[in-house]
Amino acid sequence: MEYFSVNAERFLSDLHSLRGFGKCGNGVQRRAFSEADIAARDWLAGRMSAAGLKTQIDPVGNVFGLTDGASLLLGSHSDTQPEGGWLDGALGVIAALEVARASAEQDGPPISVVSFQDEEGKFGALTGSSIWSGKLSLQEADKIISADGARFADERAKLGDRISGFVEPARFTGFLEMHIEQGPVLDEAQEAIGVVTSIVGLRQLQITVEGQQNHAGTTPMASRRDAFMAAAHFAVLLEDRFANVVTPRTVWTIGHVRVEPNAPSIVPGRAIFTLQWRDPDFDRLERIEKVIVETLRDAATETGCTFRSERLRKDLVPMPMDTRLEKACAEAAEKVAPGRWRRMPSGALHDASNVSALMPVGMLFVPSINGISHSFEEDTAEEDLVTGLNVLAEAAMRLSRPA
Amino acid sequence: MEYFSVNAERFLSDLHSLRGFGKCGNGVQRRAFSEADIAARDWLAGRMSAAGLKTQIDPVGNVFGLTDGASLLLGSHSDTQPEGGWLDGALGVIAALEVARASAEQDGPPISVVSFQDEEGKFGALTGSSIWSGKLSLQEADKIISADGARFADERAKLGDRISGFVEPARFTGFLEMHIEQGPVLDEAQEAIGVVTSIVGLRQLQITVEGQQNHAGTTPMASRRDAFMAAAHFAVLLEDRFANVVTPRTVWTIGHVRVEPNAPSIVPGRAIFTLQWRDPDFDRLERIEKVIVETLRDAATETGCTFRSERLRKDLVPMPMDTRLEKACAEAAEKVAPGRWRRMPSGALHDASNVSALMPVGMLFVPSINGISHSFEEDTAEEDLVTGLNVLAEAAMRLSRPA
Repeated sequence: MEYFSVNAERFLSDLHSLRGFGKCGNGVQRRAFSEADIAARDWLAGRMSAAGLKTQIDPVGNVFGLTDGASLLLGSHSDTQPEGGWLDGALGVIAALEVARASAEQDGPPISVVSFQDEEGKFGALTGSSIWSGKLSLQEADKIISADGARFADERAKLGDRISGFVEPARFTGFLEMHIEQGPVLDEAQEAIGVVTSIVGLRQLQITVEGQQNHAGTTPMASRRDAFMAAAHFAVLLEDRFANVVTPRTVWTIGHVRVEPNAPSIVPGRAIFTLQWRDPDFDRLERIEKVIVETLRDAATETGCTFRSERLRKDLVPMPMDTRLEKACAEAAEKVAPGRWRRMPSGALHDASNVSALMPVGMLFVPSINGISHSFEEDTAEEDLVTGLNVLAEAAMRLSRPA
Repeated sequence: MEYFSVNAERFLSDLHSLRGFGKCGNGVQRRAFSEADIAARDWLAGRMSAAGLKTQIDPVGNVFGLTDGASLLLGSHSDTQPEGGWLDGALGVIAALEVARASAEQDGPPISVVSFQDEEGKFGALTGSSIWSGKLSLQEADKIISADGARFADERAKLGDRISGFVEPARFTGFLEMHIEQGPVLDEAQEAIGVVTSIVGLRQLQITVEGQQNHAGTTPMASRRDAFMAAAHFAVLLEDRFANVVTPRTVWTIGHVRVEPNAPSIVPGRAIFTLQWRDPDFDRLERIEKVIVETLRDAATETGCTFRSERLRKDLVPMPMDTRLEKACAEAAEKVAPGRWRRMPSGALHDASNVSALMPVGMLFVPSINGISHSFEEDTAEEDLVTGLNVLAEAAMRLSRPA
């Protein structure tokens, strides 16, 4: 085994340097293609060069630090939400940098680094890795207009002569991404590491309840078909029925709700809401949908309203991690933090989901204090950051052993 | 008894003439102080004069047709909703005109007529009768700005030299208002007349549910405090508990609902909704509120969210009709439409509610086809309109008998 050891102090120092780009209170504003984002990518390219890696910025802003020849790829993304936390993807990028640097310094195995662009979805979701993985063509992407009116083609043109070609994926033997959990599971269990088993699948329906709009004073209760009350009944009934099909890893959410005409003295004639569910298991996503369909039918019978469901967003299938990479992560976790780690699915999407189309992928989580992310309050204990770094390094070493 | 008989043909003809002002399809657009509304008031004043009544338009646009000396007052309002039905208040005004005219022609008892202004609330609710009854001062009213930016003072100035002083309420011995039901009760029962026992009281709370906003992918169900689900549980629980306290005359409505941040992938952190309830009985309004307060407390315990309630609109107390006027209406209904009438509360507000501060009031309803009102589709069978006219005339005669 080729052994090397990482430098925790240097890792934390780089992590705080990156935080300086777009810093705002305890958080960061580093939206993809903002001045702060591009400056951070330039800084990152400089740190990669200093670590002996060959830097390459591809046409969409993904920054690579490459070894010569074949290597493992480590990384995540360095762009943030409009009001983002300081760790999020930045942690995985800087941990990757330190592991690659330490390995290069100590004649360890070849390790390359990446920071993907626009994971946070100014132009959709996971834009940089979507294009690199071939899921989204550059031509299509160029036409995308962001919520604030920017065209992707114009935004990426800001990169100017930094840009060279796309990196050939075949040069990488696998991809490891470390990320904050963004949920409360590890923090509540006081565990240090999550070894991701899969990125959950996601389905979403928009449900329209049609009742009868009426005067709230003159329409007797028995004559009403109240769309809001029908939606409330559906939600409570669904929760009850889900008890038989969900696991502790299933989540479901009614997040967007609109009532029409939405006036205190008018019986609601229409209610429109989203119903989203996520699960690591494809069959369970399917079984949950069957329960939803049955419950829609029964709620219609019970309430006298009609329920219509539409699929306005594409299903995402669950993406299992590669067995070998997951095993390396689990062994590394047990070595560095014995008994203080668990296997768990990722409830959020990550670049690893796209990269899995190109090569075997694995993921590690560190705890999020109180489960908070996408917020200036997002944080992780320094000790846990360093544990994450050591587990990532250990996993990379294990994956670089000759088979 | 002083007997006279009304002319159904002339009544229907006048009703259709009034419909011509602001006619739009089967409905009418005759918002208070619009050109159509003022033209209709001028026409109405002309019809009153032709019937031998002395017309007087007061400073806010209420049009009176007066007999000499003391009289009963009959009427309603002739303004409409922005997209109103052709009957609504117009029916009560034209029925009053015909009864007063027939009585005058046939040496019947003295009967005066009124069309109140802005019952439909361009400037609040029941504006004309509110000012006449002293509930709202002219000075306060003049400052009110409508949703479309018009000032009440400017609008009533359009009346120009039509205006004279306010009519002295003491000259009237009582007020009878006929109106369409605006609900489905009479239509469903195939009855011709409703004798109103009281105008229901109304209370309204705005309820704010505070949960915890969270990522819909990474937050396990067991860790959530979902404000929308908490609101749905409250609504269903409340419906269940109301079974023990409401009567078929109680109505309650959650009509306005807002969820925050209202995004498919975010667990709702806050839900804000109105809860309105109406009942003819003051004690029951109170008992219902006690159930609501208990249910808010229990829903908070059950869901882990906090529930806060605020009173953003003034309570309206139930307004019973005068016993003598209600009795005269009931006797008249039984004479004209034996067995085809019922006593019932009014779930909607009416000018009679304000006028009851000045004199004894009574109200009659005719059926609304399918319970529809405030809509171009609003209608009533012609036969029922004429029955209403006859009952109103009969009630007026009975009230004019010497005691």
